[in-house]
Order: sequence, then structure tokens, then C-alpha cells
Amino acid sequence: MKISHEGLSKVAGFLGAGLYCGIKQVKKPDLALIYSANECSAAGVFTQNRVAASSVIITRNKLLKRGKARAVIINSGNANVCTGKSGERSSLAAIRATAKALQIQESDILIASTGKISEPLPIHKIIRAIPDLTGQLSIPGCHLAAEGIMTTDTFPKKITVRGNVGGKMITVGGFAKGSGMIHPNMATMLAFLGTDARASSSLLKKALKKSAALSFNSITVDTTSTNDMVLILANGHAQNRSFSAESKEFKQFSELVLTACRELAKMIVKDGEGATKFITIDVKGAKSGSEAKKVAYSIARSPLVKTAFFGEDANWGRIMAAIGCSGVPIVENKISLSMNGFPFVKNGIGLGNATEKKVVKTLKQKELFLTVDLHQGSEEARVWTTDLSYDYIKINASYRT
Amino acid sequence: MKISHEGLSKVAGFLGAGLYCGIKQVKKPDLALIYSANECSAAGVFTQNRVAASSVIITRNKLLKRGKARAVIINSGNANVCTGKSGERSSLAAIRATAKALQIQESDILIASTGKISEPLPIHKIIRAIPDLTGQLSIPGCHLAAEGIMTTDTFPKKITVRGNVGGKMITVGGFAKGSGMIHPNMATMLAFLGTDARASSSLLKKALKKSAALSFNSITVDTTSTNDMVLILANGHAQNRSFSAESKEFKQFSELVLTACRELAKMIVKDGEGATKFITIDVKGAKSGSEAKKVAYSIARSPLVKTAFFGEDANWGRIMAAIGCSGVPIVENKISLSMNGFPFVKNGIGLGNATEKKVVKTLKQKELFLTVDLHQGSEEARVWTTDLSYDYIKINASYRT
Repeated sequence: MKISHEGLSKVAGFLGAGLYCGIKQVKKPDLALIYSANECSAAGVFTQNRVAASSVIITRNKLLKRGKARAVIINSGNANVCTGKSGERSSLAAIRATAKALQIQESDILIASTGKISEPLPIHKIIRAIPDLTGQLSIPGCHLAAEGIMTTDTFPKKITVRGNVGGKMITVGGFAKGSGMIHPNMATMLAFLGTDARASSSLLKKALKKSAALSFNSITVDTTSTNDMVLILANGHAQNRSFSAESKEFKQFSELVLTACRELAKMIVKDGEGATKFITIDVKGAKSGSEAKKVAYSIARSPLVKTAFFGEDANWGRIMAAIGCSGVPIVENKISLSMNGFPFVKNGIGLGNATEKKVVKTLKQKELFLTVDLHQGSEEARVWTTDLSYDYIKINASYRT
Repeated sequence: MKISHEGLSKVAGFLGAGLYCGIKQVKKPDLALIYSANECSAAGVFTQNRVAASSVIITRNKLLKRGKARAVIINSGNANVCTGKSGERSSLAAIRATAKALQIQESDILIASTGKISEPLPIHKIIRAIPDLTGQLSIPGCHLAAEGIMTTDTFPKKITVRGNVGGKMITVGGFAKGSGMIHPNMATMLAFLGTDARASSSLLKKALKKSAALSFNSITVDTTSTNDMVLILANGHAQNRSFSAESKEFKQFSELVLTACRELAKMIVKDGEGATKFITIDVKGAKSGSEAKKVAYSIARSPLVKTAFFGEDANWGRIMAAIGCSGVPIVENKISLSMNGFPFVKNGIGLGNATEKKVVKTLKQKELFLTVDLHQGSEEARVWTTDLSYDYIKINASYRT
């Protein structure tokens, strides 16, 4: 398997475009389009938030109905959420204008939005820009599309994964946005993947669902958002033979999708608002996978643990307290903890000052690895998170001003 | 009902003491004692954290066994948690030394600890100080006891509530600590109440449990802790007639306990680490009380909502998003929001810029009132919280250094 950061541009048959249409206050791309020359199988996973943006509702319904698509129109700068009927009308108008400019069916066009919430979408700006946007579709335009979906992101997040699927070389590529406000069940998180594989919509859904659980839904920077979606479009350019859900080929293909999602998710965490540390939390020895994940999240979400990481403090008591309030019936005196490879808690008790000093030294690293062993079973889970810093407060206290 | 802030000192028959024994790095009281001249009925509620301090385990077991007590010894500066068998031995040694100095039974002494976690308790310092501590027991000493349990608290939290119970004037008084790290199911939160009522241990438990749910367990500043407890001791000095759980007297008495708990809980929130705002969140129109509470907590715990309050930003979209991810099946276009009495969201949609400007002006107040109406039923819940500021990060990133 080969991983590079060229995004969608290396997937045969896909074009992209991105430009500034005037939604953002600063002149940075805020409108993006991806396009396939032929009709694709398509699938998506969406936010679990009961308050969902009109783009989420429309795209989810389209995929449920047909599982096909040729284009995705995406705006940043405004999430078009909590905007009622007029918000829905705006989303449909954007789709209509895109269909007209591309001369394809409205049913073949999906939509996504991200940005400030609870403000009306300036739809006229989008409609006015769409002819330019479609006119600029190109292979390098995929890079501009990746920029066009950014909000507080400090860098575009692009991935290309290439590997063998039943003897054919298959490519999965795409891009994502997200920085802060990220949490399981996905928050202000968008990702768009294209592949040259031939695969049915239901197989895409199956691969994407599992991949999202192990990637986008395994990162926690903040609470869940209203606009999140991950889409995958498969155009079949590779002309591989069809495969079933039980085949080796499906397993190989799923691995490519998972890798693409995981790399994008990790980039999102690294770009967490104000983050100074990237933390991988592994929980082992759990009775079940879901118990392992609960414990991992309880640590990853604890403001006390996160501020201790920011302060480079080996405060293992806070980690123990977070484990204790995870809701999982852990046994305190069975727990061991390692930080960056150094065991520093055994049977629920710290291994002393000398060990702690060693650990503290390693906390100066930007990437941290915490391993928790519950010694209750053989299941495990991994989540990624960041520390909680002054800059997180700064960015989020003033985001709208 | 009369409320004042004299704490335990106004409850007949109770004495207190507090001094510095050397646990804290700064010379502030870190050891406290409360004492009753006669044996009391006693009850407590405790942390739900699976990782519990030895003081929690010992005190909980003592109350389960006998429901009686005469004294409580409390240290601050060290939580004596995650310290295994030696931690338990230290707690028992502190009880033994107190019993010896007071010349009462060990079984009549309860214990609590708070402070830094996962460090060995310097028990010799406590034992050395206990004779001085018991020698200083007095009525004004109750104020020193309130100071002796403080950690990052910036002020002692004391309450006295006096009211009629079946024709007798009954007093409930006490003190609490907590500032930051507070969350439902109680976190680094200690409260000690004394009353001159005559009431059985089981009635005390009943009154305290309900009161804690509506007070200490309705505040959320952070995640749950390992050491929390709320204790109540009743010495019977008022010589009221015994009452049953169904009596009017019990209702009157419970109201006094609830008021004492609620006032202490509000003081804890006001002292939240780095807090600049005190926020009351009322959720109405829910199908059940538990759904109302879930929605209220989802808002109160959202870092995005809390940083928006700090930034004095009327970001109602973030509030809607927090409601949406509460797990409660809300209906977006039924929801209305009011801030400080101004309706600013109706049927899930903002009432426009003019309204928002009015609301923004009121956000400069230190006390904020958010009301959410789900329009789905008639149940409600109230929680209290704070904003999330730079100083929260500062206090918690450097707490151990």
C-alpha cells in the first residue's frame, strides 16, 4: 500500500475546483466542487446530531434513494444550519444552479456546508459564482477544492492511498476539513473521497461505515456538530471485477478506505484548535471493545487530563479518575498505565518519583502515547485526541467576532 | 426560612477546628475537625467514581454499618487516592489518633480527604497535629474548619438555614469546598452539614440524597472526582418529636437540608476555576425530568457553548447543536430559547440581528439565565455552570507544579 498527500487529484476520472465567492470575511476559497465524468456509486455517513443542517438531510436522502452521484458542491464560511425552510431552499437552489451549469441531473448532485452556524446562507453569492466554479474544473483544481472547504483549519488535509485489490491497482483519494469541535459521531468534520474502484453503493457504505468508526469517530477534540458528513464516490475507472462483501477483494478495498480515513482523521486532530500535543490513547485488556472505547473516551474528553497534558504534568491520578468515571466496572488495583513506552502505574499505584521524572521528560514531545491496561479481558480500542490550551479558548471565544 | 452564612457555628452542640499541619506547600489550614458533644445520627452521599479514595470507602462503610458519628476529621492538600493499602492504613491511623485525642470510639469518627491525587499522604504530619487540633475545638473554630478543607477554592463556603419543623425552630448549618473539577455525581466536592434536629439515620439519608440530586449533582464545571462526599450529622439538641418519612415535619426538614445544599452548590459554581460567568440553565417542556436534565447537561458541558459565554457571544447555534447531541429525541423546529429573559430563538430559528444585539448586551452581566423550551411535554430541570476561560487552563495546567 502506498500513501501520499496528493488528495483526489491522483484518482482517475475526478476533477475539482475551488474559489472565493464572498461568504468568508477574508478572501480565501469558500466554494468547492468535485466532479466525475461518469456517474458513480456513492455512499455517506452523517452526523448523529438531532439538529442537522439542510445539506446533511438532503444528501442523506439522495443517497438513500439512489446511491448514485456525479458531483458534490460544498461551501465553507456558513454551515446553513438552524435556518429552517429558507435554509433548505438555499441548499436546493445551489444544487439546481450546479446541475444547470454542469448540464447534469439535479439528482446526481450532493451538497455539504460548513462554517458559522445560525446565520442565513448568502445563496445569491454562491449561485453567481457557480458558472465560474464549474468552468474551472480540472485535475489540479482538486487542491483548490481541498482549500475551499477549510474553516479554522490551518492546513488542507489531503490523502491518496493506492493498493492492490484482486490484482488491480486501486486508488482512494480525497480531502477533509476539521480543526477543533471534533468528537465521536463527528463534528464540523467533512471528508470527500473518490476511488477508481468499481463497487456498489451498498459495499461502499459498508466499507465507509466501518472505516469511519475506526477513524473519524475515534477522534475527540470537542462536542458533536450539526453538519458532518463523509462521502465516497466510486467511478469504476479501474475496471476491476465486481466483488462481494465476503470476498478478499472487499477486505483489500476496505483497508484502502480505512487507511485514507485514518490518515485524514489524524490530520484533523493534529490541527485541533490550539492543540500543542497529539495524543494516542490505547486501552487494552477490556472485557469488550465498547468498554475499551468508553474508557478511552473518558480519558480523551477529560478537561483535567487534557490541561495536564498541556502543562506536561504526568498527573496519572487524573487519568485514573477519568477511567473511574467512564461508567465501565473497572477494578482499580488491576490497572496499569504506560506513557510513551514507560510503565508508570502498576496495580493502580504509581511507580514512584524516579519513574515519574522519566515520564515527565518524554511529555515534552509533541506526540504522546498513553497505554491503559485494564487487565480484565482481551479487547481493545484506540482514540486520538489533543491537549487543551489557552489558544483553544481564544479561538472559540472569538470565533464569530 | 432564614439563610445566613455563619456555617456550622450556629448549630447548637457542634464544635470545629482547623490548622496548618504541613501538607500544603503554602501555610494555609490543611487539617479540619468537626465534633459533636453527643453521638449523632449520620448519613452521607458519595462519589460514583469507581476509583474512590480510601476516605470514601471507610466513611461509606462506617455509615452503612452504624449510621452514627460524633466527629469528622478532614485533610486538604492531599486526596489520598490511588495509594493502595498504605493509603488505607493512613486513613485508619488518622482516625485512631483522633479517637485517642478525643477519648471517643474509633467507630464514631468519619474521615474525608481532598487535594492532589496520587501522592502518598504525609500521615505523620497529620498525627503529630491532631492533639493541637482537638485542643482547639470551639464554636468559632467551625470557621477555621471551613478554611481547612479548601484547595483551589478562593473563599470558604458556609451556610446556615433555620426554619420551623413541626413548631420547633431547627437549624441546618455547614460548609463545603469545591472549585473547578465539579460535575454531576460530584467531583472534588466535600460538604459537611450539622443539624440540631432529631432524625434517624435513614431519614437523614433520604433527605440528603434528594437534596444532593437537586444541588451538588446539578452543577457541572468539570469531570467527576474520586473523593467526593456530603455528610450530615444530627445531634437532636432541638428535642423535636420524632417524625416519619411521610410527615409534614419531614418535608419541612428536607426543605432546610435542600436549601443548605443548594446554596453551597451555587457557591461552588461561583468559585469555578477561572469562571467569569455564573450560568443557570433551565430546560422546560421535556417529556421527562431525566430528558430535561440530559439536555441541560449537554449544554452545560459543551466547551463550545462555555467558551462562547466567556466571549459574550450570543451563539445560539452552538446551544442548538449541544441540544441536538444530548441523546434526547428533540424536535428542532419546536425549540425556543431565551437569554436573560429575552426570547431569541423560536421554532428552532433565531429571531434576527436586532434581538441578538439586545441579548449580547445582557451577556456582559456576571449572572446569566438561559431558558430552553423543548415544547414536548411538561417536565423540567435546572443546572448551574460557568463559562470556560483562559484561567481555567492556567489553574489546571499548573496545579501540581
